[in-house]
Amino acid sequence: MNLKNSMAIFLLVIGFAFPALTLAEGHPNLILTKAGVEKIRANLGKVPLFDASLKSLQEEVDAEIALGIDTPIPKDFSGGYTHERHKRNFQIAQKAGALFQILEDEKYARYVRDMLMQYEAMYKNLPLHPQERSYSRGKLFWQCLNDSNWLVYMSQAYDAIYEWLPQEQRSTLEKNLFRPFADFISLENPQFFNRVHNHSTWGNAAVGMIGLVMKDEELIQRALYGIEDDGLPIGTKDNDGGIIKVEGQKKGFFANLEEPFSPDGYYTEGPYYQRYAMSPFLIFAVGLHNARPEFKVLEHKDGVLLKAVDALLNLADADGEFFPLNDGQKGMSYYSRELVTAVDLAYHYGDQNPQLLSIAEKQGQVLLDESGLSVALGIQQGKAEPFVKKSVNLRDGPDGKQGSIGVLRYGDEDLTLVFKAAAQGLSHGHYDKLSFSLYEQGDEVLQDYGLARFVNIEQKGGGNYLKENKTWAKQTVAHNTLTLNQTSHFNGDYETGSKHHSELYLFAGSGKDVQVVSGKESNAYPGTDMHRTMAMIKDASFEKPFVLDIMKVSSDRENQYDLPFYYMGHVLKVNFDYDSPSSLQPLGKTNGYEHLYLEGKGKPATDTTQFAWLGNGKYYTLTSATNTSDELLLTRLGANDPEFNLRRDAAIMLRRKAKDTIFATVIEPHGSYSPVSELSVNSNSNIASLKVVHDDKNYTAVSIEDQQGQVKVFLLANKNASTSKKHKLKVGSKSYRWTGPYHYTTM
Amino acid sequence: MNLKNSMAIFLLVIGFAFPALTLAEGHPNLILTKAGVEKIRANLGKVPLFDASLKSLQEEVDAEIALGIDTPIPKDFSGGYTHERHKRNFQIAQKAGALFQILEDEKYARYVRDMLMQYEAMYKNLPLHPQERSYSRGKLFWQCLNDSNWLVYMSQAYDAIYEWLPQEQRSTLEKNLFRPFADFISLENPQFFNRVHNHSTWGNAAVGMIGLVMKDEELIQRALYGIEDDGLPIGTKDNDGGIIKVEGQKKGFFANLEEPFSPDGYYTEGPYYQRYAMSPFLIFAVGLHNARPEFKVLEHKDGVLLKAVDALLNLADADGEFFPLNDGQKGMSYYSRELVTAVDLAYHYGDQNPQLLSIAEKQGQVLLDESGLSVALGIQQGKAEPFVKKSVNLRDGPDGKQGSIGVLRYGDEDLTLVFKAAAQGLSHGHYDKLSFSLYEQGDEVLQDYGLARFVNIEQKGGGNYLKENKTWAKQTVAHNTLTLNQTSHFNGDYETGSKHHSELYLFAGSGKDVQVVSGKESNAYPGTDMHRTMAMIKDASFEKPFVLDIMKVSSDRENQYDLPFYYMGHVLKVNFDYDSPSSLQPLGKTNGYEHLYLEGKGKPATDTTQFAWLGNGKYYTLTSATNTSDELLLTRLGANDPEFNLRRDAAIMLRRKAKDTIFATVIEPHGSYSPVSELSVNSNSNIASLKVVHDDKNYTAVSIEDQQGQVKVFLLANKNASTSKKHKLKVGSKSYRWTGPYHYTTM
Repeated sequence: MNLKNSMAIFLLVIGFAFPALTLAEGHPNLILTKAGVEKIRANLGKVPLFDASLKSLQEEVDAEIALGIDTPIPKDFSGGYTHERHKRNFQIAQKAGALFQILEDEKYARYVRDMLMQYEAMYKNLPLHPQERSYSRGKLFWQCLNDSNWLVYMSQAYDAIYEWLPQEQRSTLEKNLFRPFADFISLENPQFFNRVHNHSTWGNAAVGMIGLVMKDEELIQRALYGIEDDGLPIGTKDNDGGIIKVEGQKKGFFANLEEPFSPDGYYTEGPYYQRYAMSPFLIFAVGLHNARPEFKVLEHKDGVLLKAVDALLNLADADGEFFPLNDGQKGMSYYSRELVTAVDLAYHYGDQNPQLLSIAEKQGQVLLDESGLSVALGIQQGKAEPFVKKSVNLRDGPDGKQGSIGVLRYGDEDLTLVFKAAAQGLSHGHYDKLSFSLYEQGDEVLQDYGLARFVNIEQKGGGNYLKENKTWAKQTVAHNTLTLNQTSHFNGDYETGSKHHSELYLFAGSGKDVQVVSGKESNAYPGTDMHRTMAMIKDASFEKPFVLDIMKVSSDRENQYDLPFYYMGHVLKVNFDYDSPSSLQPLGKTNGYEHLYLEGKGKPATDTTQFAWLGNGKYYTLTSATNTSDELLLTRLGANDPEFNLRRDAAIMLRRKAKDTIFATVIEPHGSYSPVSELSVNSNSNIASLKVVHDDKNYTAVSIEDQQGQVKVFLLANKNASTSKKHKLKVGSKSYRWTGPYHYTTM
Repeated sequence: MNLKNSMAIFLLVIGFAFPALTLAEGHPNLILTKAGVEKIRANLGKVPLFDASLKSLQEEVDAEIALGIDTPIPKDFSGGYTHERHKRNFQIAQKAGALFQILEDEKYARYVRDMLMQYEAMYKNLPLHPQERSYSRGKLFWQCLNDSNWLVYMSQAYDAIYEWLPQEQRSTLEKNLFRPFADFISLENPQFFNRVHNHSTWGNAAVGMIGLVMKDEELIQRALYGIEDDGLPIGTKDNDGGIIKVEGQKKGFFANLEEPFSPDGYYTEGPYYQRYAMSPFLIFAVGLHNARPEFKVLEHKDGVLLKAVDALLNLADADGEFFPLNDGQKGMSYYSRELVTAVDLAYHYGDQNPQLLSIAEKQGQVLLDESGLSVALGIQQGKAEPFVKKSVNLRDGPDGKQGSIGVLRYGDEDLTLVFKAAAQGLSHGHYDKLSFSLYEQGDEVLQDYGLARFVNIEQKGGGNYLKENKTWAKQTVAHNTLTLNQTSHFNGDYETGSKHHSELYLFAGSGKDVQVVSGKESNAYPGTDMHRTMAMIKDASFEKPFVLDIMKVSSDRENQYDLPFYYMGHVLKVNFDYDSPSSLQPLGKTNGYEHLYLEGKGKPATDTTQFAWLGNGKYYTLTSATNTSDELLLTRLGANDPEFNLRRDAAIMLRRKAKDTIFATVIEPHGSYSPVSELSVNSNSNIASLKVVHDDKNYTAVSIEDQQGQVKVFLLANKNASTSKKHKLKVGSKSYRWTGPYHYTTM
């Protein structure tokens, strides 16, 4: 043992044995703790990933310190200078606080103090933010949400320098800045603070975090249980159309923890917001865990917070990018700072899952706290294992009874199907019952459009939601699912949609060659039942796995059914004739149709319609069982988009007028093309014909004939998903017997 | 020294000292030589990259041997089975030959022999290929070009087993297969063999290579000097519209080496075809170098072949992808097999430039010959240095007097401008005088469309040129250059275009902060002179370098000038009003305009028009000095494209009706956006105004005012590009004095 090591251990022992014991009740005591800091100091210079993170953070903070502190008078939306400056301030202050604790260099403490004092001087007389768009305008920012972000981080900065600050400076800050700040985002904005919504979670965490630092029991209670009497009327809405208060609603942090997370850890708004929303949950939960272990917050609801981290990591493609379910901006991934937090905390405060370490390795940074140290140590000790994503069924709803998100995966994410048979998803939900998206590795094959917003890009509506989010992105026709009579699910009505959810019919994600997910929806269009079943099949006579999609509809009247597939890539070949218009017209006037141009319109030439495209060096063919009276529409997004807010993406849309009907489609990935070798491999579909060979209320059977003449059949029981139920069905002259809801066999 | 090593050295010595000496005149003697093979055998197991390349090649060939040999009756276009099978056959046979030489395992010799014998049995009675599209139909393939590829590779395979084969089998092969094959692609197809064209180069190399193996002096002479009397009429064209024979044209390999390569090593058809065309040049040249050193082919024209490798590597973006000048398929790069050949041969037979080794490292493979061994040894010995691409001026034309391709680069390829003031580029040329494209690292900022073809993708016109290549890709309006009166340069007439070339006015690529390229074109539109100057400027008050584009036009009549900029990305913001049509109409009827939809039409609101977009996480703003009578068109490709052969790419087009005029535009990269951090940095242009402050026939001056109020001026002498010439110009009340053709200074 060298001198440095023994010194470190000596300090560690001292730290634990004498002053630390008296100060254990002291500060820091939220994310950073006194014990954690001692452990970190003892390991400095020994754990590569931690040291690298420390170095990079120190460089970042030092550069900001060199620039000087600026707390401008608030003026801008997100993307604008004052917004970005205040945002950067709280981020840097939190980091400077951590650096002060770890490095014991007072320049960092002085930086935090000086910044807080500037805010204190400014806050006393600060009016509401001049931008008026939000239902809850903040003071530093245009919405209370961002003010709450500020307080969550500044609480940690304050905690880090608390003991270093003279008592009278603490009093000044608490009296003039922190307490009024906490009251403003809670008591003065109950419509923001008292919801069950990601906004409120941030508000709760902000008030709770500063309450923990200040040991202000009133604030802690308010954070945990909300404002008792908020005087808000039932049914008011926010500026995004979200409902603020419903009858009998709980409030505060525990209510927010209860409601939106399902028992499987799925957050009902979708992964993009789950990432965002989880930060305050986790940060405040760890703060409570450290400062108030008696609440056992991490064990709450069977450990749902840690389960949620796992769920979120499973809602990503092979590149770590989250599926853009509901309002989700594409490209957001587990490389985000929120996921660094989530992964480190889940590893340290959870069961030290070694698979999390490989994600932390990819992230290339850790938190500068005890959890980050644990992760960096685990990696250093060679404990990391690959994070293996499997097929998962994530139930939706507080009790897990509001449908689910089913993810089927084949191989090492060679093919990933994301199927949505879930609840509305609060104010960020889309009207896309039984929709799906498909990925081959990290590439979208059939896309979910995501949101219509350029987050934080000032030039695009201040970085906020664009009106096309409502007129396009949320509409049913923007998704790979069924639209009736050119109207959206629930007629696009949020309150109606929020009352209902799809039902999961079956999820079978463990089969080696056949995996199936199936859901039903009866409320999107009253009088019409939709039952969609998607099977991911690896058949030995096909190069790659394919997806069989069976959409069965029964209705009490005749409807026009539109089933679009938003393929990603370049059209290669079709087996039907179509007209190409000489000028492009919008496909409709409302419900998203006004944004679609019609680039081609045709009719099936045979009962097996095929459409092939090339996407990112890989071939795909869509094969569908069609009638000659069907219409085949080739659409392109971009109509009625004067501000160029939408991408120019394309779809093939199957259109059929019928009462009861069934759409059976195979999406078949095959082959590859490289512009470097210019080799085109297996560029043709292996399917010769696709037929619905049986359909009644109890059973559906679809046959797939390949190019070698082999015929397979997929048999589905429509009414009983029990895995032990025995079935018998005669198709043509042949009888099939099987057990369980589905069967794939030679015909 | 261990036993294995001493054995190897013993064998090496033996090889050189005794049998090799007698056999040096023997086989192999083309790309592989007896001496090279001995050296390779001596190094086996010692040079990682060589061993890895050998192993991967052995696996590939063994897998093919296991499949068995198939020589199907020719039937398909490229992309189809018979085409791809025959192509694979010659590639594998060449590799199997090399493996036989290196590993001395007779199974590889047997494989080559058996395959050649199958071809021999088939070839005798083989008719012309059934597909009739080509002006020179082959027998194994639809065009002689591919038959020639076959012979270039099969010659090497034959050379490798030559000494192993019994004399009577050699006679059979030569009599029934090789000699008739060589005569077919030459004597029976003079319209293919006797051109100055990449097709003929392959033909020459094919005939020459088999001539060298067979020591058939007649074939060698034919390859080098062409067919004396081909009986072809002057002016006939091929199926791509290329002229086959012009008056007084030379022929054969030396003519092909003379004509298309400029003294700087630029191949007039552009880098995509240079890559393709260089293979036969290099392979045959190395064959000649080894078998007939007296021709000194590598020293020919001041070592143009090795210069050409360097030129080609400099015609790539930061990712190694070639600029798609003229007909070029995007994505083709220095990772292609042709560039593995080119880099290895250039290193070994050239001056062992250590920068080539870093490209070979990226390629991850080497040739299995002496050149590949040299490269692998160089890498193993740590000699590799980064390949640094700098600004380069590559003159066009056999004598370097037909204009040039000017490439300006800033920093480590942070910004790359490709400016084309060159000749027509033979049959693969586009009508795009004075056009340009712009890259930030490996991302296109303003694109060159490239070709309209899906090479080898059967579903798209058999993988051949699509008709949109002519109606769109070659047209002037498809490029970032000026179109007059909606007609293309030279009225789109190939013969007229081929008679002229642009003139380089100046190239100044060595300045640290200001680099300039400038060209003139007087023949594209008779009676109209175009003079375009592009400056890449790094100004301290701008975050990144920007490009100032000055297009000066003078005409003997009023014209409609259209200047499009094909931006890559999503429109963010404009500073002018425009109408968005409710339906999309094509912009014109001919010359490429029929393929453009008009998505928006407006007029400048001020004399400084701005248009901003976001492309791949980076911001860009185009700023142009405009008149209020100008029109601003927002176009989208895709009209009259019933087969979906075109991408849906967009442009902003400046339209002005004038006689003499000047377009002054800045393209300004700035800032960044990450969907992971959601940080939007420096998203606004730094330019407040852009003005043409002086313009007469002798001088042009453009001022750029930044957001801080600083004004800079770019002064250009239009008539004298001498670097020593002194200039004086009064702009407003201030006089400027400078030396050389341009000056950038504070106004």
